[in-house]
Amino acid sequence: MIQRPRGTRDFGPAEMAKRRKVELAMREACSRFGFGEVVTPTFEHSELFTLRSGQSIVDEMYVFKDKGDREMALRPEITASVIRFYVNEMSTHPKPLKLYYVGNCFRYENPQSGRYREFFQIGAELIGSKNPETDAEVIALAVNCIRSAGLENFVVRVGHIGVLKSLVREQIEDEKAAADVLRMIDKEDWDALGDMFDARVLPRKLFDRITAIADIKGGIEELNNLEDSEATRHLRELFDVLRLYGIEDCQVDLGIVRGLDYYTGMVFEIDAPKLGAEKQVLGGGSYALSELFGGEPVFSTGFAIGIDRVALAIDAERKIEPKPALDAYVIPTKDDMRKYAFGMVARLRSQGLRADVDLMRRTMSKNLKYASSLGARFAVIVGKEEMAKRSVTLRDMTSGKQEVVLADNIASEICKRMG
Amino acid sequence: MIQRPRGTRDFGPAEMAKRRKVELAMREACSRFGFGEVVTPTFEHSELFTLRSGQSIVDEMYVFKDKGDREMALRPEITASVIRFYVNEMSTHPKPLKLYYVGNCFRYENPQSGRYREFFQIGAELIGSKNPETDAEVIALAVNCIRSAGLENFVVRVGHIGVLKSLVREQIEDEKAAADVLRMIDKEDWDALGDMFDARVLPRKLFDRITAIADIKGGIEELNNLEDSEATRHLRELFDVLRLYGIEDCQVDLGIVRGLDYYTGMVFEIDAPKLGAEKQVLGGGSYALSELFGGEPVFSTGFAIGIDRVALAIDAERKIEPKPALDAYVIPTKDDMRKYAFGMVARLRSQGLRADVDLMRRTMSKNLKYASSLGARFAVIVGKEEMAKRSVTLRDMTSGKQEVVLADNIASEICKRMG
Repeated sequence: MIQRPRGTRDFGPAEMAKRRKVELAMREACSRFGFGEVVTPTFEHSELFTLRSGQSIVDEMYVFKDKGDREMALRPEITASVIRFYVNEMSTHPKPLKLYYVGNCFRYENPQSGRYREFFQIGAELIGSKNPETDAEVIALAVNCIRSAGLENFVVRVGHIGVLKSLVREQIEDEKAAADVLRMIDKEDWDALGDMFDARVLPRKLFDRITAIADIKGGIEELNNLEDSEATRHLRELFDVLRLYGIEDCQVDLGIVRGLDYYTGMVFEIDAPKLGAEKQVLGGGSYALSELFGGEPVFSTGFAIGIDRVALAIDAERKIEPKPALDAYVIPTKDDMRKYAFGMVARLRSQGLRADVDLMRRTMSKNLKYASSLGARFAVIVGKEEMAKRSVTLRDMTSGKQEVVLADNIASEICKRMG
Repeated sequence: MIQRPRGTRDFGPAEMAKRRKVELAMREACSRFGFGEVVTPTFEHSELFTLRSGQSIVDEMYVFKDKGDREMALRPEITASVIRFYVNEMSTHPKPLKLYYVGNCFRYENPQSGRYREFFQIGAELIGSKNPETDAEVIALAVNCIRSAGLENFVVRVGHIGVLKSLVREQIEDEKAAADVLRMIDKEDWDALGDMFDARVLPRKLFDRITAIADIKGGIEELNNLEDSEATRHLRELFDVLRLYGIEDCQVDLGIVRGLDYYTGMVFEIDAPKLGAEKQVLGGGSYALSELFGGEPVFSTGFAIGIDRVALAIDAERKIEPKPALDAYVIPTKDDMRKYAFGMVARLRSQGLRADVDLMRRTMSKNLKYASSLGARFAVIVGKEEMAKRSVTLRDMTSGKQEVVLADNIASEICKRMG
C-alpha cells in the first residue's frame, strides 16, 4: 500500500463537515467585517519568505528548483503572499484595504502533537493604517472569527512592542546584543536573559525593568504603573474602541514582543487554554512589509488563525455537531419500482434536500441497513400498492415510525418533519 | 518587486466572490446527491501518480525530494489520492461510498490560454460499483454541478470503451500495436491511424469499422446501428436512468476512449462550446485503481471538473453577479460621534449584515467616496442632532436618497430596503 506522506493528513467526510462548519463561520465573520477574500499561489519564489522571515526559514520550508532553475518554496505562511499581491497589483486601491485568506501552508519539521507538515490557516490583513481603530478592528475581527467558530474559552492578550523595544534599543547600544535580548524576551527565556545580566551586557536596573514590564499582564489598568508613552496611549485608545465593539475581556500583555523586525506596534495573540502546551491559536500585530517587497511603505495590521488548532480546541470543549449527511434515502420494494425511485430522488434533490437512492439493487433489509450507516434521517419506500395510490411510505430512521404520504408532497412532508 | 511564479495566479476579492459562488453551487450539488467531502495532502509520493498515469507524467509534475530523500510530487490530480485514502482507511465502509473533493492541482507545462501551472478542480468518486445506475448517478451529479454553477450551454457526451477496445483487442494480436491504435483513436489522430493502415498493421475492414464506430455521435438511437453487446446494453440502461433523473440531452459518443488502462467501461466528457479549442470542462468514467495501490479490487466511477474553465465559460455566457461586498458603511459626522459609530457597526454586524466604519478619521465627502468605492449599498451617518433623538441618517448609496431612522432599528431598516 502507498502511504500518505509523513506528517500530512487525510480528512474523511465526518471530519470535513466539522472543519467546513468552523471555516464557514470564520469566513462569514470576515465578510461581515467588510474583508474580501484573496487567493494566492501555493508556492512562491523562496525569496519572498526569506525576505520576511530571514534565511533560517529555509530549513523549515519545502524548497525545490523549477525547470528554469528558480528556487521555489511551498508557502509556510500567507501574509507575505498577500502583501506581494498588494504591492504588485493593488497598491492604488482605496485604503484601508481589507483582505482575508483561507489556505494550506507547509512546514518541514518533525511531526508532533498538533503540528503537521501541511496545515490550514485563515487570516486577515488590513492594509493602509496602524491607528488605534484599525488595530481594534482587526482584533475585533479575530475575536469574532474565534467566537463564531464556536470556541468559548479563549484568552486575548494584546501588547505593544514599542514599550520593551524602545527601552532595550535606548539602553543597549550594541545592536546585536539588543536584538538578542528582544529575542529572549519574546521566547520568555529568562535564564538566557539572566546569563546576559551575569555577563554584564545587561545592567541590573535594566534587567529588573525588563522583567517587570514583561510581567505586566492583566486589565488595561495595568498600564497605570507605566509612564505615559506613545505605546500606552495607543493601547488605551485601542481598548476604548474594543469596548465600543462589545469586547471587554482582552488582557494587556507587554511580554509579547514577536521577534521579527517588521512588527511596528501592536501585537496580539489568542490562546485556547484547553490545548495545553500548543495553546496558541492566533498570532498577529501591526507590521510594515511592502517596502521589503519593493513597494511604497504602508502600514498593515493582520493575524493568522490555525484552523487545525481551533477545531481541536472546540472539540476539547464539546462535540461539533454537523447536521446529518443525508435527509432521505429512497428504496424501491421491487425491481419494477426502481424507475419511480429514481424519479423520487430527483424530485427530492431538486427541492434542495440531500437524498440518495438504492444503486445496488439490494433487498429492503440491506437497504435499510445501508441508509442507517449513512445517517439518513428518513427512508422513502416506494412500493407497488402505495404507488397505485400515488403514495409512498415515509420511515423515520430514528424512531422507526412509518407513515404513508402522497408522493407529490414528499419533499414538503420531509421538511415539515425536520422542523 | 517580487513577482508571483510564472503560470500561477493571484485572485482578488471580486474574482474570488465569483469563484466561490461557482464552487459553492457545485459543493451543494454534491451534498444533495449524498456525496461527502474528503481532503487529501497537496503533495504525495510521486509513485502514486506514476502508478496511475505512467512514468511520462513525471515530466509534467513538480517533483522534489524531501529530507528523507523520498520523491514527492505536487498532485497533478486528486482521484489517485482519494483512492489511496480509500485503500488505506475506508475499504470496509458500506458501499457505494460517495466522495467528493475540491482542491488545487499542479501541472508543469508552458502556460498558455486557459491552462495554468496551478489550477482548481472539483471532482467526485463513487466507489464500489459500476452498474448502469451508479454510472448514471455520477453523470447526473456532473450535470447538476455544471447546471447549478450557472452554465447553460454545455454538451454531455457519453461513451463506452468496451466497444472499440474489445474490437481492437480482438482483431490486433500485437499488444503494443493495439495500444497504439487505441491511443490514436483517443486523440482522434486519424492521420496516424491511416498510416498504420498503410503499413498494413491495420486491415482496411478494421480501419473502416473503427472510424465508423468512432463517428457514432448523437442520440441513444445511434446504438441501433451496432450489434448488441454488453457495452450497448449498459449504455441503454444508463440512458434510461438518466431520463428518469430528468436528464434528456446527453449524447452518445463512442469515439471517447480515454487512453489510460484503468478505465473499465463508461467514459464521459462535458464541453462548453463557447470556450473554443480548450472547451472540455469535465472528464470522467468508470475505472479500477485500488488494486494498483495495493488494495482489494473495486470498481469506481468518477469525474473531475476544471473550476477555472467552468468559471470562464459562465463568464463567456453572461456576467456572474456576486452580491455587493458591503451592506452598510457607518460615518461619524464629528470626532465625538466616533464612539457611537463603533457601537453602530458592531450592532449591524451582530445582526449578520456586512458592515464597515470609518477607521481613518476622514471627512464626510472622503468617507462617502470610500464607501462608494467599496460598493456599499447604504451609508449610515451618525450626527450629533440625530443622535440626540436616538436617530441616524440612512443614505441609499445608489439613489443618494437620505432618511432619518431610529438608531435602534438600523439593522431592520436596512434589511427592509434590501428586500
